[in-house]
Amino acid sequence: MRMTQLHAPTLREAPKEAELVSHRLLLRAGFIRQLTAGVYDILPLGMRSVTRISNIIREELDRAGAQEVLLPAVQPAELWKESGRWDKYGPELLRFKDRKEAEYCLGPTHEEVIVDLVRRDVRSYRQLPVNLYQIQFKFRDEIRPRGGLMRGREFIMKDAYSFDASEEGAHASYRAMYQAYEAIFRRCGLDFRAVEADTGNIGGSLSHEFQVLATHGEDAIVSCDTCSYTANVEKAAIGQRGVTAPPITEGAPERVDTPNRRTVEEVTHFLGVTPDQLIKTLIVLVDGQPWAALVRGDRELNPLKIKDALQAGEVTLADDATVTRVTGAPVGFAGPVGLSIPVIADPEVALMVDAVCGANAADTHLRGVAAGRDFSPRQVADVHLAREGDACPRCEGRLRAFRGIEVGHVFYLGTRYSKPMGCTFLDRDGQDKPMVMGCYGIGVTRILAAAVEQHFDDRGIVWPMALAPFQLAIIPLGRPGDELASAADQLYRDAKAAGLDAVIDDRDERPGVKFADSDLMGFPLQVVLGKRGLAEGKVELKFRDGRATENVPLAEIVERLRALVAEALA
Amino acid sequence: MRMTQLHAPTLREAPKEAELVSHRLLLRAGFIRQLTAGVYDILPLGMRSVTRISNIIREELDRAGAQEVLLPAVQPAELWKESGRWDKYGPELLRFKDRKEAEYCLGPTHEEVIVDLVRRDVRSYRQLPVNLYQIQFKFRDEIRPRGGLMRGREFIMKDAYSFDASEEGAHASYRAMYQAYEAIFRRCGLDFRAVEADTGNIGGSLSHEFQVLATHGEDAIVSCDTCSYTANVEKAAIGQRGVTAPPITEGAPERVDTPNRRTVEEVTHFLGVTPDQLIKTLIVLVDGQPWAALVRGDRELNPLKIKDALQAGEVTLADDATVTRVTGAPVGFAGPVGLSIPVIADPEVALMVDAVCGANAADTHLRGVAAGRDFSPRQVADVHLAREGDACPRCEGRLRAFRGIEVGHVFYLGTRYSKPMGCTFLDRDGQDKPMVMGCYGIGVTRILAAAVEQHFDDRGIVWPMALAPFQLAIIPLGRPGDELASAADQLYRDAKAAGLDAVIDDRDERPGVKFADSDLMGFPLQVVLGKRGLAEGKVELKFRDGRATENVPLAEIVERLRALVAEALA
Repeated sequence: MRMTQLHAPTLREAPKEAELVSHRLLLRAGFIRQLTAGVYDILPLGMRSVTRISNIIREELDRAGAQEVLLPAVQPAELWKESGRWDKYGPELLRFKDRKEAEYCLGPTHEEVIVDLVRRDVRSYRQLPVNLYQIQFKFRDEIRPRGGLMRGREFIMKDAYSFDASEEGAHASYRAMYQAYEAIFRRCGLDFRAVEADTGNIGGSLSHEFQVLATHGEDAIVSCDTCSYTANVEKAAIGQRGVTAPPITEGAPERVDTPNRRTVEEVTHFLGVTPDQLIKTLIVLVDGQPWAALVRGDRELNPLKIKDALQAGEVTLADDATVTRVTGAPVGFAGPVGLSIPVIADPEVALMVDAVCGANAADTHLRGVAAGRDFSPRQVADVHLAREGDACPRCEGRLRAFRGIEVGHVFYLGTRYSKPMGCTFLDRDGQDKPMVMGCYGIGVTRILAAAVEQHFDDRGIVWPMALAPFQLAIIPLGRPGDELASAADQLYRDAKAAGLDAVIDDRDERPGVKFADSDLMGFPLQVVLGKRGLAEGKVELKFRDGRATENVPLAEIVERLRALVAEALA
Repeated sequence: MRMTQLHAPTLREAPKEAELVSHRLLLRAGFIRQLTAGVYDILPLGMRSVTRISNIIREELDRAGAQEVLLPAVQPAELWKESGRWDKYGPELLRFKDRKEAEYCLGPTHEEVIVDLVRRDVRSYRQLPVNLYQIQFKFRDEIRPRGGLMRGREFIMKDAYSFDASEEGAHASYRAMYQAYEAIFRRCGLDFRAVEADTGNIGGSLSHEFQVLATHGEDAIVSCDTCSYTANVEKAAIGQRGVTAPPITEGAPERVDTPNRRTVEEVTHFLGVTPDQLIKTLIVLVDGQPWAALVRGDRELNPLKIKDALQAGEVTLADDATVTRVTGAPVGFAGPVGLSIPVIADPEVALMVDAVCGANAADTHLRGVAAGRDFSPRQVADVHLAREGDACPRCEGRLRAFRGIEVGHVFYLGTRYSKPMGCTFLDRDGQDKPMVMGCYGIGVTRILAAAVEQHFDDRGIVWPMALAPFQLAIIPLGRPGDELASAADQLYRDAKAAGLDAVIDDRDERPGVKFADSDLMGFPLQVVLGKRGLAEGKVELKFRDGRATENVPLAEIVERLRALVAEALA
């Protein structure tokens, strides 16, 4: 492609509302443009990268035995009523009527449509398993779309759905897709983690998120420094080490005045203790009933873990009035001693024998509190939020903390959709059974944003080779029509003939402008043709990722480029 | 791909409402399924063919200098209000509101969106020309969707838009796309014609339809047997041969009784003349004013040509009351002699010297009527409908009649959208000018249907090689696990290694079932492995298009297949 013909309009400045670096750079480098809130035009450079991602996905899914289909964007309401989601989905589901007043929605996902397709055509175990995928746009009417391609309303997604005759079969399908996802993200050149994810309202199911590590990722995850354990922070379990509780001395807690000291920092500073010597007491509502939840002062509570531990439907922090009612004290002075509501304590708290906690009285705390002696939790369970340095629940390692961007999600669905929608098959034993399903998503346009969040510098995007719109830019430092231009042209033709994907900057621009644009657009390799070098039969080979520039004989450059590209894509 | 893993559910019978052969066969062979009226799921076999079509389109458009983009399906109403189409488009435009009550539509086409994109980024003649295309789904809320993929509501389209600095440039872009379209449809293996099309309400513009010839095509077209002239019947001009009118004898018409004889057939039969000796007189309303339009008795009137000849806004046939009022006779006895309303006559009629026509009196006709002597047309113009055998307007050839399916349309838009939407650029001369546009569509899913309409027999689809989901089927005539199966398996692996796209029928089915399915699905080449043949080291090579079966040594079959595929795709 010639830069004079490429439609890649660059911007000096991104609009102020673009906060994420990927949003700014994709706009500035001419990969995308906003059409309306959360809806983007994909320009030629963006489309080239999207195509590369799509092709990697297709190759790996085909290899895993999945087959590509294309399902409609416009979906009839009846199917969503069958699955029960027409009423449940909320305003993110864009609904409308056609000219005949029939109800439809714009697909935010395709479980209903695929189940309807499969139930009509698959009737026997001999036709199973089936795994179908599509690469197609989705629409979700997000109330606050943000981050450009990171969380749009219209976006491209790869979604796949597997149908099996048994749970074992469905688990095998799940594993095959999990492995295909690992291959896909590895080939995209992304640093990612497969993360155990919260399964939401579908109990007993299995779910993994694929998170691209990036400083500004939306999700907090922890990963063991020794084994492969990785989980969303909200889901992450924390290992218990074999610590035995110190002996409890006889005695009773001592009341101390802590005038106006409410926060962990204020109290520990005032009493000269460290945060891990304090019991943080939070009043929560477990399905409406007040409980006291205890974690160490240096910890954060994870309400989701209380929900799991107590098998509750909803856990929220209590409002100030409730706190005052159940503790008899203003907010900031709660403690477990003498409380009449049930207590759930983190295992770390259950080991404390000389702790500080609120006295359930204004401006007062207790010292020398011992768990078991001064209060008895109704339940002891891991309820604190995992963080850097916590013990791994699977091995002797320690957890490290990361921020991540979710680019993929695999989900074991079981019969969640096949049962209500009557997607059944005749099994070997003559019984009619619901198919066992999995579903598997990849945010195709989000990968573009995630890749940029992980690969950029102050000059622009630094594309991994596999996702770059062009593998290399050929940059002659002269004017159109001069000797450098014709040498560059010859190199461009040679590179194309060698199967390289090159762009030639044939514009009548200053070298500085050409370098800046190539860097902004993020082409991995840049071959610069200058007068002095060419006189010696050499060109300059620059690497966008910061490796040292090389001077390469013109006669050898194509072979060198080919080797570099092959190495990067291996 | 193994047939045991392929999700290609076949049907013994297509639903009764499927009338077109392409609709029936695509359903029966497992290429598509209907989700709701005019909306289809594309199954793996269909998707493979769609991908082949898309890739041919991409290659040819890239070669022509166009660049792929992806524009949103959801489009804001404001843009459509700017172009003036929000009110004009009618109920085919599906409109809806998002959760914030903002108005949107589902794109039936993308002129507004692309103009909005280009006007924001292109400001100088130096950035022109630009030609952008996308392959994307469209939605048109057809009141009566029909024919499966032939006229759906949701369908896949390739749409391209060119922007030029001048009319000459725009014409060059148009020509380049025209040529790319020829290459695309040729490579798809389709017998097609590029047809001069009616430009609708955009006067002075240029437009060609690409029509795939098929017996049940929606459109009637004529094409010269000598030169390349081809046009939609409604648009087709008819050549005038250098015939001079015979001398007009003196005299006057003779009145003859024709009791109850009204139609051309009745009158000519009764009077013992041929239809080309009769003047057919039709009363039409030209912008509300009655005219008599004359064509020879063996011709059909083309009202669109009257509209063009008289530069009128609307031409309709008059109702019976009007006919009686202006002719003074019941319907069936009109003639030009003595009429007070203006007359427009086809050139063929202007040459008639001994004709029969109605006498403007009940049950009466005139004989021996001579144009020029007995009546004087206000205008002589080609107003009859072209048909097989008519003279070509461009050369000495004759027109042949075809039915066609429109699969592509190229359109010179001029400034129809750029002017109202302010899509301007700064020209070389410092002036701000509207860009000159073209737009270019291809019905991707419709090509699938059109290809089947052109290529089928009583056993199923006969795919052109370029569109076939698989180039060949390998069919062992034994049972899974036997010697034939393992020979077939080896051949399958060899074929894949040679770059052939093969499916192996590894099902435990009778030969008849395997043959029937391969024929139904339309794979161009079929390699059959039987016991006797294999004992002699031979396989049977069958051609779906009816060429004679060959016995080919197993050692040579892959090379033979490769040559056949290469030849078919050349």
